[in-house]
Amino acid sequence: MKSNRYCVIMCGGAGSRFWPFSRDNMPKQFLDFFGTGRSLLQLTVDRITPVVPKENIILVTNVKYAGIIREQLPGIPEENILCEPARRNTAPCICWAANHIAASCPDALIATLPSDHLVLKETAFAKAIEDGFDFVSSGDRLLTLGIKPTYPNTGYGYIQLGQHVDGCDDTRKVKSFTEKPDPEMARFFLDSGEFYWNAGIFIWKAADIIKAFEQHCPEMAQLFESGRKYYATPLEKDFIEANFQNAQSISIDYAVMEKASNVFVKTVDLGWSDLGSWKALYDVSPKNAEGNVTQNCNVLAPGCTGSLFAVNGEKIIVASGLKDYIVADNGNALLICPADEEQKIRQVVNDVRTRFGEEFV
Amino acid sequence: MKSNRYCVIMCGGAGSRFWPFSRDNMPKQFLDFFGTGRSLLQLTVDRITPVVPKENIILVTNVKYAGIIREQLPGIPEENILCEPARRNTAPCICWAANHIAASCPDALIATLPSDHLVLKETAFAKAIEDGFDFVSSGDRLLTLGIKPTYPNTGYGYIQLGQHVDGCDDTRKVKSFTEKPDPEMARFFLDSGEFYWNAGIFIWKAADIIKAFEQHCPEMAQLFESGRKYYATPLEKDFIEANFQNAQSISIDYAVMEKASNVFVKTVDLGWSDLGSWKALYDVSPKNAEGNVTQNCNVLAPGCTGSLFAVNGEKIIVASGLKDYIVADNGNALLICPADEEQKIRQVVNDVRTRFGEEFV
Repeated sequence: MKSNRYCVIMCGGAGSRFWPFSRDNMPKQFLDFFGTGRSLLQLTVDRITPVVPKENIILVTNVKYAGIIREQLPGIPEENILCEPARRNTAPCICWAANHIAASCPDALIATLPSDHLVLKETAFAKAIEDGFDFVSSGDRLLTLGIKPTYPNTGYGYIQLGQHVDGCDDTRKVKSFTEKPDPEMARFFLDSGEFYWNAGIFIWKAADIIKAFEQHCPEMAQLFESGRKYYATPLEKDFIEANFQNAQSISIDYAVMEKASNVFVKTVDLGWSDLGSWKALYDVSPKNAEGNVTQNCNVLAPGCTGSLFAVNGEKIIVASGLKDYIVADNGNALLICPADEEQKIRQVVNDVRTRFGEEFV
Repeated sequence: MKSNRYCVIMCGGAGSRFWPFSRDNMPKQFLDFFGTGRSLLQLTVDRITPVVPKENIILVTNVKYAGIIREQLPGIPEENILCEPARRNTAPCICWAANHIAASCPDALIATLPSDHLVLKETAFAKAIEDGFDFVSSGDRLLTLGIKPTYPNTGYGYIQLGQHVDGCDDTRKVKSFTEKPDPEMARFFLDSGEFYWNAGIFIWKAADIIKAFEQHCPEMAQLFESGRKYYATPLEKDFIEANFQNAQSISIDYAVMEKASNVFVKTVDLGWSDLGSWKALYDVSPKNAEGNVTQNCNVLAPGCTGSLFAVNGEKIIVASGLKDYIVADNGNALLICPADEEQKIRQVVNDVRTRFGEEFV
């Protein structure tokens, strides 16, 4: 029996915050950060396969990463890789994927997932998606997963919890969304107990999200509905090539979630991190007695504390006297940077590109 | 006309103070530290060729480096490479080389040079060697070059100046030698104006240094004189293989120079450094406005001061906030270490060998 459970994995992001590990031609989601032999994308697929059959896993990516994806995910049918010809943020990606899936399965349920996050609790994750599918099966509901915050992160989006849903202990109406609060606000959010982190994991029926686009982002809805007769046919690619670039570049949060009134949040404990930075990777990694983290490498670090050492390849690092540093060595680039300056890495990468050339970024 | 001027370049040292650039199989003298395209050994040969013909340049090395030397110095006759089958410090090296040279040129004059030092003033160097040859031509004299100290270095050997030599403004009898003084003593040496650095550059007649060995180190003299009939013949190699290891491991300073009464010092200004450490390399290298030195690499170093960045290969470094650090990246090893801790590098290299294996040292 063909399942109506689908999953859309968004894996077209570029991102420079993990430079020099992540590169223009090898972004974060394709890297094996934990030395497990599986990239973050592969781990994402591993995590969803107990709930969604492989033939229903859709990967939306930039055309330049299609080759890496085929290589990393040989078990996924090639026609499941949707290639965006331009970068347009998450809303067009989600709108296209929903239309694509609805064309062959009008009653599809879709879980939409980022490809580059960390989820430590796989069983809880699978159960959350299962329960989420059940929840959105009845009625017109858009569901997002909310993570209980553990510290006042100023880089995440926050979801304010509203009314309880009858019979669902862990699911509430969404009262509001807030992106990247200032430190004071983040502290208030944390203390109130009423705000959860937005993990960017969404569950809905294909029909319901298409309807939501029609209501809240009608131009984009119309753009992608105009291709209805091409989806899941050999002509889909041509249609996308011709039209995708005309879609507004906007996130799903701004385009739909913040406007819709039928948005719910399921509060979950997934051992989640967005791995948005070296510092985030440091935070979730096991540390030695001096608080140092080593990723895939042998390190002698006398007098070093609170530092992360990451090397791509068979290499040793001898470091002395570094306090709270990131040391990341990959191929033709080496980064040595205080952990609390890592927000500057994006700028640094631009400087590197300008001064030394594309081959270093 | 065959010249009686010879030069012995000692290039068998191992040394770990420039790890991870210098390695067991590629010590410092074979490295191109300044990105000039010439190794320290090649620069040493370049420097002496105005004074000594190439066919009279003798290289004494450890057998394991013979291949590198042939590669780096294709212009030197292969039979001029003397391969020590064991490490025995400088005295056996010098004693063998003197006997080897005397066998084919009994009235040879020999300049003995380290292969891994920096000499910026090449013309002054050539003149010093020329003048030195003249000085030792008459009489039984052992000559060493003395460098006017510029700071109280505690790692060098010091030469105390004695009586002037008639007619030689810059040449004095040697009163005493002192190895590696403590900081107070080094300060006193510097302030007195009477002590010069021992550059390890020696000039003498082959016959005179052999005689000095006979007087002050008779066992070693006898060991090498017992091979007299083999030197400069195809049997020399076998004789050395069988006997060299029996030589005492001792420096020329301890074995002869500190004991002999016919030792003279010529005070010279050569722009000299023994390049004994990363810090020494830093000191002699051009610096940018922040006092940073970059060796062969592209560096973005916001907030870094007084640091040295060295990379072997096409690579960039982005570093932030390092004060007085050494960052040295070469192949499978990376060193990040405060400049004032570099005396620990030898120990670190031993730790690396023990914990991670020979391939990293």
